[in-house]
Amino acid sequence: MEWTIGIDIGGTKIEIAAVDSDGNIIESILCYTNVKGGPQAIVSEIVTAIKKLQQTISTPCKAVGIGMAGQIEAETGIVHFAPNLYWHDFPLKEKIESKLKLPVFVTNDVRAATWGEWLHGAGKNCNNLVCMFVGTGIGGGIVINNRIVEGASNTAGEIGHMIVDINGPICTCGNRGCLEALAGGWGIEQRAEEAVKKHPVEGQKLLHLSSDGTITPKHVFQAYYEGDPLAKHLVDNITNALIAGAISIVHAFNPEKLILGGGIINGLPELVDWIREGVLQFALSAATTNLHIVPAELQHNAGSIGAATYALKQVGR
Amino acid sequence: MEWTIGIDIGGTKIEIAAVDSDGNIIESILCYTNVKGGPQAIVSEIVTAIKKLQQTISTPCKAVGIGMAGQIEAETGIVHFAPNLYWHDFPLKEKIESKLKLPVFVTNDVRAATWGEWLHGAGKNCNNLVCMFVGTGIGGGIVINNRIVEGASNTAGEIGHMIVDINGPICTCGNRGCLEALAGGWGIEQRAEEAVKKHPVEGQKLLHLSSDGTITPKHVFQAYYEGDPLAKHLVDNITNALIAGAISIVHAFNPEKLILGGGIINGLPELVDWIREGVLQFALSAATTNLHIVPAELQHNAGSIGAATYALKQVGR
Repeated sequence: MEWTIGIDIGGTKIEIAAVDSDGNIIESILCYTNVKGGPQAIVSEIVTAIKKLQQTISTPCKAVGIGMAGQIEAETGIVHFAPNLYWHDFPLKEKIESKLKLPVFVTNDVRAATWGEWLHGAGKNCNNLVCMFVGTGIGGGIVINNRIVEGASNTAGEIGHMIVDINGPICTCGNRGCLEALAGGWGIEQRAEEAVKKHPVEGQKLLHLSSDGTITPKHVFQAYYEGDPLAKHLVDNITNALIAGAISIVHAFNPEKLILGGGIINGLPELVDWIREGVLQFALSAATTNLHIVPAELQHNAGSIGAATYALKQVGR
Repeated sequence: MEWTIGIDIGGTKIEIAAVDSDGNIIESILCYTNVKGGPQAIVSEIVTAIKKLQQTISTPCKAVGIGMAGQIEAETGIVHFAPNLYWHDFPLKEKIESKLKLPVFVTNDVRAATWGEWLHGAGKNCNNLVCMFVGTGIGGGIVINNRIVEGASNTAGEIGHMIVDINGPICTCGNRGCLEALAGGWGIEQRAEEAVKKHPVEGQKLLHLSSDGTITPKHVFQAYYEGDPLAKHLVDNITNALIAGAISIVHAFNPEKLILGGGIINGLPELVDWIREGVLQFALSAATTNLHIVPAELQHNAGSIGAATYALKQVGR
């Protein structure tokens, strides 16, 4: 049996999984992310886990793939910046390779999840697709003509920073009205807080759900499900922004599949239907002839399965 | 010498050019577009011109490429809809092939111009680029990993219908705030007329330049060059919309080159510098590391050179 290791390094936990060539997890180890210990502590933890998995499985491991949020240089595997972990310019690939006789490949979390969805999830057998992951931020992965699009400096797919409202709220990137400022987790939080401040009476329900005054997307969705009008208004705005973003993507790329995943989509799964309806109604009909808009399939294992898939592709299978 | 024929069918004239494999025009014939005669009249005109060119050049012609505005099915060469010419479902490829012993390939005007710019213009030796042509409408052509991106239904690159202002003016496609509703020729006309209606005193200069009350982009640019404040305001809005659109494109595709062409860019060439400055200042720095924003080079021959280049590629050179 052919297998690779896929590692998903998140801000709170790390999943280290042995994944077969069909994208199935054979064994996996979960540990908490020791952010304070710095990159060296995480490297030790990862190396120990890999050795444990190698002892469990009789056939040799082919490679290690790592997915994590941040700016990563594909060829060198240097993590230039990992905002969740406070890493700067850490040579992750080199550090792990020096302790194991295995090739290591590092990519960002969104790219890894795209590899997973494309080859083993909602994008199976599809050569032209866009994955849109709506979490705290919004990231995208693109497959065109059977290849992942990396771009000239490895940042293709930054669809969260497509501008949909040129006069809209300021984004973390400095521009106004980026898609994620309207519909990413942090953007929803800001928009909800603004709305509650502006409409304190109508905002009672949302404030009530929040224990500390911070209104999260979860609170907005709960209030929406319970029929709260202000939450309904916020959800309408989120939906309209995501429809506008999806229309822009469909017009630019004309994909065969638009795959929607991430915490916000999982928290309000109806979004997939609403986005589909909106795009089919409002995009150019020529661009939607062969389009399917579907939810992501791999869910919380997308990162590790995707990273393993990426590594397997890099060693040439 | 290897050569193909490139044909640019426009709403007012048709250029039929013999083009060598380096993208140079050897000979060309220009005729007016007989719109009233219907597609059959244009086919006859084209066939006559091709025969004339074949008699002039001693080596055999390899193929014919045609670029025209409209919805075209690449494999069959059927023109489903050509808005300038009022054609519907006309089998252009088949009709010309039946009168000549040459393979004929039909593509839309923007795609043809992208072939030209990519292989013989501003995009030479570049494998990841986006062409943005700002004319009456706004169209785009995309090259990724050394291939033109066609998309799942041959409409990739409809960047004029990326939404940049979700609350903006209504576009011809029915959505609000598409890039071309703000910065395409027809959009500029509408925005200028609105501005003049709203500010009749400040609009005197623009109204004065227009003989019949229709304010064209040309009038706006002329008034801008002559220091008119309302025209300056309109030009600022156009520039900001194009910067927002360019930022969205750069974030989505992360191209090595963004090539800017079309009548609006040619009418106000400073736009190239302003868009470059705006993108470099406001886009994610990681996405602009390897980015060059440059004007298109082929100008009014882009269509015929591009169509010839496309045809040559299709016959396998």
